[in-house]
Amino acid sequence: MRVILPAGTTETALIDGISAAGASPDLMEHTPSADVEILAYGKPTMAPVTPVSPNGCPTPAAVTRAVREVIDFDVSVVDAGLAQPTGAPTVGLGVEPGADIRNTVAVPDAQAIFDRAHAYGASLPDDELLVGETVPGGTTTALGVLTALGEPAGVSSSLPKNPIERKRQVVDEALTASGGSAGSFDGRPIEAIHAVGDPVQATVAGIAAGALESGIDVTLAGGTQMVAVATVLRHAGVDAPLSIATTSFVDREQGDRLGEACYRLNCALTVTDPGFDAREHVSMARYCAGVAKEGVAMGGALSLVPDDRMEAVLDRFEAVCGRLGIEDEDDGNGSGNGNADDPANSSPEDDRAP
Amino acid sequence: MRVILPAGTTETALIDGISAAGASPDLMEHTPSADVEILAYGKPTMAPVTPVSPNGCPTPAAVTRAVREVIDFDVSVVDAGLAQPTGAPTVGLGVEPGADIRNTVAVPDAQAIFDRAHAYGASLPDDELLVGETVPGGTTTALGVLTALGEPAGVSSSLPKNPIERKRQVVDEALTASGGSAGSFDGRPIEAIHAVGDPVQATVAGIAAGALESGIDVTLAGGTQMVAVATVLRHAGVDAPLSIATTSFVDREQGDRLGEACYRLNCALTVTDPGFDAREHVSMARYCAGVAKEGVAMGGALSLVPDDRMEAVLDRFEAVCGRLGIEDEDDGNGSGNGNADDPANSSPEDDRAP
Repeated sequence: MRVILPAGTTETALIDGISAAGASPDLMEHTPSADVEILAYGKPTMAPVTPVSPNGCPTPAAVTRAVREVIDFDVSVVDAGLAQPTGAPTVGLGVEPGADIRNTVAVPDAQAIFDRAHAYGASLPDDELLVGETVPGGTTTALGVLTALGEPAGVSSSLPKNPIERKRQVVDEALTASGGSAGSFDGRPIEAIHAVGDPVQATVAGIAAGALESGIDVTLAGGTQMVAVATVLRHAGVDAPLSIATTSFVDREQGDRLGEACYRLNCALTVTDPGFDAREHVSMARYCAGVAKEGVAMGGALSLVPDDRMEAVLDRFEAVCGRLGIEDEDDGNGSGNGNADDPANSSPEDDRAP
Repeated sequence: MRVILPAGTTETALIDGISAAGASPDLMEHTPSADVEILAYGKPTMAPVTPVSPNGCPTPAAVTRAVREVIDFDVSVVDAGLAQPTGAPTVGLGVEPGADIRNTVAVPDAQAIFDRAHAYGASLPDDELLVGETVPGGTTTALGVLTALGEPAGVSSSLPKNPIERKRQVVDEALTASGGSAGSFDGRPIEAIHAVGDPVQATVAGIAAGALESGIDVTLAGGTQMVAVATVLRHAGVDAPLSIATTSFVDREQGDRLGEACYRLNCALTVTDPGFDAREHVSMARYCAGVAKEGVAMGGALSLVPDDRMEAVLDRFEAVCGRLGIEDEDDGNGSGNGNADDPANSSPEDDRAP
């Protein structure tokens, strides 16, 4: 099994109140670069930051890495618009960071990115692929593309309380700036990404389309961002079987809507619960409280774990957290405190796109 | 165990009669890009060529990949001056292809490459590293650096009959063009690379120096090219323990000289014989006849194989050759014929640098 991980950035993430992928906005553009280092080496190497949410919840990269330390799988990270250097090996497809979707154009070369990613996906000799993503602000661009394509799916959030109204407002502004409206890009998915998406979407969609065309089984590893990619693929006329694998944290937030979206898109859906609630570890408690939820192929990686190996994954996750300086108890280093001050409201809001 | 593989190019390889790393000169600059795809995916993906010597001997990447399919190890490919795109993930350190060493300058930013590679090597969390290389023309640039530094080691060849006189002539021209002479760069190893080396040397030396400084055990995986890198490190004042791991094919060609060079450089030397002579496979016969010999961390990878797993590696090597279109018998596809028309003269010539 190979996990392909397109990693990139969009200036959309810098909009106030959008993303929890990084403790502060100025460090956030390092998040995907650090994520892929964690996946490749077990901890950040060249990146100057360890991605944690504002309340100290470690990036989903830590979970995916933990899985990799238990059941080895090949990883190919694709540079899908990184804004900062990374010490991890990345496939170079010439992808630049995305602009704020409130600009006229969000991804100037969306079609060229899709085409190059398609060629890359079609070139792979694998029988099956998991394709994940890491892009701060990615649920907002997902809402952008879903709305542009007229798909009534909702989007998730890395924050326990989904700032969905803020996202809708941003998407409305973005569509207006691009001369579009809800549903006006129906059947023109790459143009939707061009207008209100991000470069990671173009990369994931291109790789998936190319791989499917070559007869490779493709699972999109992620939550509502992958619903957006699946929507792009279906609007692009790709009718091959497709699966989405995500975490129970996204599923719980989304309620029935995730399954409904997958049904409409003719996508199989796999939801994996890692059983974090059975442990006392603060990082696991944060995930159970609805922080982070998914990303960096976490749900897809967890879906590969045989039942009798999940305990080992949880052990490794604790070890990875330790390596990242996130201890279970408040050790005064400020990066991981054990106080129960989480906004633990993870109940789903009605964040269905219009 | 992690294998770091700096992969790059130098226009030196295009000089007539220098390299067997690629069937024809115009395809040779694709060789390292294809090598790292073979290592990452098991066969070339985006590269338009399968690297074979003019008589159909597959690249050492096929052997290293075979080892990887038996005893899994992490690989981080570093772009150390690739001239053509690759579908493999690579660490980007901003390294450009090297110039023909007969120019005044061979590697304009040798010091900057070394420094960035040093930072990368120092950042790694591993306990031990194998550092390999793939760069067509690399034994000629190795002879350049060895000569410039006044080190009397010889260099190997990917051809059964080492064109050492041609290499010496090129190196003499190169040193003259740079205003230097044999030994004139004593104690100035990065300047030697700048004048008559290649960007892969600067990258390998930088990574090794950085890793050693961080307390990581480093083995240089390769033959006489790694003797050149070890010489660079010693001239740079790096006195940490250092090992070289290479193949029996290089060792056989070099006779006592390899061990003597390692002794002078205070380097441990590991030579691994994969036992290719016990099989009838045409690719193995080519290696036994002195074609290719080493490269793409082949000797280092083989050194990781427990004795009782070597047969499995040979089985996988046959499978990889099949995947590359190199069958054991002449199947008329022209890429692998079983005729015994090799120039099987693998006796060492006196290719000691002056």
